[in-house]
Amino acid sequence: MNSTETVLKMIFDRWDGSIKNCDAILSSLSDEQLQKEIAPGKNRGIYLLGHLIAVHDDMLTLLDMGNKLYPELRKHFIDCPDKAVAEIPSAKELRAYWSKQCEVLKQKFESLQPGQWLEKHTAVSAEDFAREPHRNKLNIIITRTSHLQYHVGQLVLLK
Amino acid sequence: MNSTETVLKMIFDRWDGSIKNCDAILSSLSDEQLQKEIAPGKNRGIYLLGHLIAVHDDMLTLLDMGNKLYPELRKHFIDCPDKAVAEIPSAKELRAYWSKQCEVLKQKFESLQPGQWLEKHTAVSAEDFAREPHRNKLNIIITRTSHLQYHVGQLVLLK
Repeated sequence: MNSTETVLKMIFDRWDGSIKNCDAILSSLSDEQLQKEIAPGKNRGIYLLGHLIAVHDDMLTLLDMGNKLYPELRKHFIDCPDKAVAEIPSAKELRAYWSKQCEVLKQKFESLQPGQWLEKHTAVSAEDFAREPHRNKLNIIITRTSHLQYHVGQLVLLK
Repeated sequence: MNSTETVLKMIFDRWDGSIKNCDAILSSLSDEQLQKEIAPGKNRGIYLLGHLIAVHDDMLTLLDMGNKLYPELRKHFIDCPDKAVAEIPSAKELRAYWSKQCEVLKQKFESLQPGQWLEKHTAVSAEDFAREPHRNKLNIIITRTSHLQYHVGQLVLLK
């Protein structure tokens, strides 16, 4: 195992571990629990689930891995705060989206060769990337793992 | 910049960003707010702050960077759950510990050469490390950033 492969293992172990942890929390919560606020006056569990799906959907575009699965979620779960939109998908629907998306991301991630993870993501120009090589695909995994953990720490409060 | 340096920048940018975010939240909270539970029946802010300091203190040992700064915190903030110990340090004391520790960790981290981050940490044997090269010092930074983000997502609820 060379050092690039070692680093990829470390970073994807953390992504996979966070997804697994989130899955376990979601499985332990009923749809009714997901409707509750994580703390008084704060976001509801269902909003956080929708938000995670919308943010992970953006990863597909950033990583140049095809179209988003649920492009309609952005306006509800990224552009708007919780409770700003009357109609959002049900907990049951969001759970199904989440599972499907995790599977798709996993397959797409596995299709990349190690060296490709250090190539630029789609939101940086070739010119900027020449000066800032850290703005690569792997960094999208690092920053979104961090984002996921932040919200997992909140979802767990519903238990 | 070679690929090891690029990867180090990505990982330390996320650590530094999480510390900075945590600092900003702590600064925005009064000592009284830190005494509150992050959600009804859950950990208090002050416990989470002590917990983070205790966990980050362990990093010094794991990274072979000298003695812990506050070894006495482990029993209150890792071995015991919140409210199990009557006397814990005050919010004022913990804030001072946190600031001092962030500064010490920053200096120690900067003293390592890039290649040293892929060397083994102290909790893995040389034999196991030969088979599992991902159990290195950099992985300690990755996993503790993830841990920090989980609790930052909780501390922010006190605002």
